[in-house]
Amino acid sequence: MLFRVSELLLDRSRCSVAGTLAVVGEKWSLLVIREAFLGVRRFADLQRILGAPRAVLTDRLATLVEQGILHRVPYQAEGERQRHEYRLTQKGMDLYPTLVALMEWGDRYLDGSGAMDLHHRGCGAPVHLTLTCDDGHRLAGAREVTPVPR
Amino acid sequence: MLFRVSELLLDRSRCSVAGTLAVVGEKWSLLVIREAFLGVRRFADLQRILGAPRAVLTDRLATLVEQGILHRVPYQAEGERQRHEYRLTQKGMDLYPTLVALMEWGDRYLDGSGAMDLHHRGCGAPVHLTLTCDDGHRLAGAREVTPVPR
Repeated sequence: MLFRVSELLLDRSRCSVAGTLAVVGEKWSLLVIREAFLGVRRFADLQRILGAPRAVLTDRLATLVEQGILHRVPYQAEGERQRHEYRLTQKGMDLYPTLVALMEWGDRYLDGSGAMDLHHRGCGAPVHLTLTCDDGHRLAGAREVTPVPR
Repeated sequence: MLFRVSELLLDRSRCSVAGTLAVVGEKWSLLVIREAFLGVRRFADLQRILGAPRAVLTDRLATLVEQGILHRVPYQAEGERQRHEYRLTQKGMDLYPTLVALMEWGDRYLDGSGAMDLHHRGCGAPVHLTLTCDDGHRLAGAREVTPVPR
């Protein structure tokens, strides 16, 4: 048993993994968020790039706005009616590590994947997600972690 | 535009986020993997804890085995027929940062969530996921990252 936690000690109904998946785990949601990070903000662009069914995309955007992950900002192209674009809130921006974690796993294990590298804007060095403890140790993985039920 | 990457420069068909979601993004898959990290390995236990429909759980386990994320190990309880339990491979273990990222976001933003804390087995200090660059800088978030198309 990797974690040696009695299943009885851990209240699954309060699990934050399940909670987060309930908010962003529907198909297309994390891809919409990916596009928001890439600066794609308008419905027509999202639909064209993602190829998601229009009704599904409408539903996902509404949910992400309702959850406070995206917010709607009005814009008006010349000669057109006013529309809204979708921008990440801080709550949405904080999903960045989730996207990077998914990306790093895919880069490592999926053939033909890996569209981009991430670099530190300040110094140019490659960026990675690391597990670190508050005493400054860098952990290799789950085996070095003990979960403590709250 | 957060990342200022022309959408034309980035080949979405090679996106590792989408690729990883295609493998583990189905409903229940990441929760099965969560349970595997918690040491829950047997079909009956998974079904009881997750409450997933039997056919769906069977399908998800088969996919995770096929993808090399779980492997099947035979076991035999006294007086019963031989069964299999499901254990994480290294490929599965490497999904740990994805689970921690989902967990940390839920801990921060979802009321009533947060079933456990993670501590470094070696020194006992709390463990967190951090974005760091190879020059040793710790990044606050996406705004400090530049994506470079490959």
